[in-house]
Amino acid sequence: MYVIGERINGMWKDVKQAIVDQDPGPIKSWTEKQIAAGADALDVNVGPATSKQVEALLWMCEIIRGISADFPIAIDNAKWAVMKEVVPQVPGPKIINSTKADPGPLAEYCGLAAEHDCSIVGLTIDQRGIPHDVDTRVEMGATILTVAMEAGLTPDRIFIDTIIQPVNVAPKQPLAVMKAMEQLKMLSDPPPHQVLGLSNVSQGARNRELINRTYIAMAVPCGLDSAIMDPCDKELMEAAITAELIMEKMIYCDSYIEAYLANK
Amino acid sequence: MYVIGERINGMWKDVKQAIVDQDPGPIKSWTEKQIAAGADALDVNVGPATSKQVEALLWMCEIIRGISADFPIAIDNAKWAVMKEVVPQVPGPKIINSTKADPGPLAEYCGLAAEHDCSIVGLTIDQRGIPHDVDTRVEMGATILTVAMEAGLTPDRIFIDTIIQPVNVAPKQPLAVMKAMEQLKMLSDPPPHQVLGLSNVSQGARNRELINRTYIAMAVPCGLDSAIMDPCDKELMEAAITAELIMEKMIYCDSYIEAYLANK
Repeated sequence: MYVIGERINGMWKDVKQAIVDQDPGPIKSWTEKQIAAGADALDVNVGPATSKQVEALLWMCEIIRGISADFPIAIDNAKWAVMKEVVPQVPGPKIINSTKADPGPLAEYCGLAAEHDCSIVGLTIDQRGIPHDVDTRVEMGATILTVAMEAGLTPDRIFIDTIIQPVNVAPKQPLAVMKAMEQLKMLSDPPPHQVLGLSNVSQGARNRELINRTYIAMAVPCGLDSAIMDPCDKELMEAAITAELIMEKMIYCDSYIEAYLANK
Repeated sequence: MYVIGERINGMWKDVKQAIVDQDPGPIKSWTEKQIAAGADALDVNVGPATSKQVEALLWMCEIIRGISADFPIAIDNAKWAVMKEVVPQVPGPKIINSTKADPGPLAEYCGLAAEHDCSIVGLTIDQRGIPHDVDTRVEMGATILTVAMEAGLTPDRIFIDTIIQPVNVAPKQPLAVMKAMEQLKMLSDPPPHQVLGLSNVSQGARNRELINRTYIAMAVPCGLDSAIMDPCDKELMEAAITAELIMEKMIYCDSYIEAYLANK
């Protein structure tokens, strides 16, 4: 599981406050905690903290780079103007998170990714909105893969996100996402990565952690190999690691969880 | 999830001792605890406690019938002579657990089930042994379904068990079982039940409960709708219930776990 730590996001109060106060403490702390817990990359999102998205993103990335020169950073922003300005200024490995599936803008994002040696997350959403069915998700996923490969990105740098919605308000969507992933994993060999913003599945629900870890176990056999998630949720990490053990992605030993985390 | 409580089994020390001492206490206690925890049926197995299998099974079933006249009992024994003698003597709903897939004996077991209005568990094993591949499991599952339906059993009374083996010694088998179940669920409409002796997946492993609950979540989308398992393992029950919620087998409400258990 390629774990993209979700916690450096202005959606959370402590991070929002840190951005407002220009206090590097919480950003440093979440960088260290998430890396220690087994993250493979760190998502960085300003959220509603400030309208100065570029400055805030660069400031947060600089703090992370002060801790690690080469830990992958997923720059998480919906605006092309912001992405175009931030990406060239952040050194080291990066993931562009995210682009939509509209071919024109998609090609621009993929070009930026190729130019700066980034990976890219492509969401299966276009001007028609988020699809509610399986087929349209697959169609958009195929578009993302095609356009990204044409831009020179190899499948290991392409993350398709089929957009998970909350089980309490969109009950058919978690299953539709699983079925779409099953088809998308057959699009190329090797397949592109498949990623989800996992916590969305339980948004507004009561048993959030339980729903998150149950869903990740169910989604791994469908092709999910990456998630924007909380690596500090120990039970969630254990579910993801155990699901990959059962899928034979690693060899069993009694201490397979410790071995997995030590290999990070 | 049709939960068959696994705990009344002479494999466990306390139950073995109860059988040896003819002490009804532990049998009563496990009957009550498992029903309260959400079991739909109780497996009853003498195990290595005594060679007097018929007497011991009848004694255990009588204790359960003293608590409930109509709670389903899964009579768990590998010998035809034992099954043939016990089944007619136990009143109320019963599951014959189990028969193998050899057509001759299979037809006898199914005839016994039809005659006494029982459900039946058919294991995908025959004189060739336990299959290691997907296709032979499916072939044997189809044989079980066909022979059982010819005997007059409807799919809702037929439980196909594709035999889960421990992930630590047979690492390819948990996935092979999932793939076989995926095919078997398409054999008829409505499909037969699919059941597993869940705890086997973690036999000899260190993180047994974690492996069990991760596997059940992964197997539910493949068609698993029943398990011989420990209903008193709260986290296992929660994983099974949540996986079924995600599969839209129930409608979301904040208290979906409590609602599920209250409906038993």
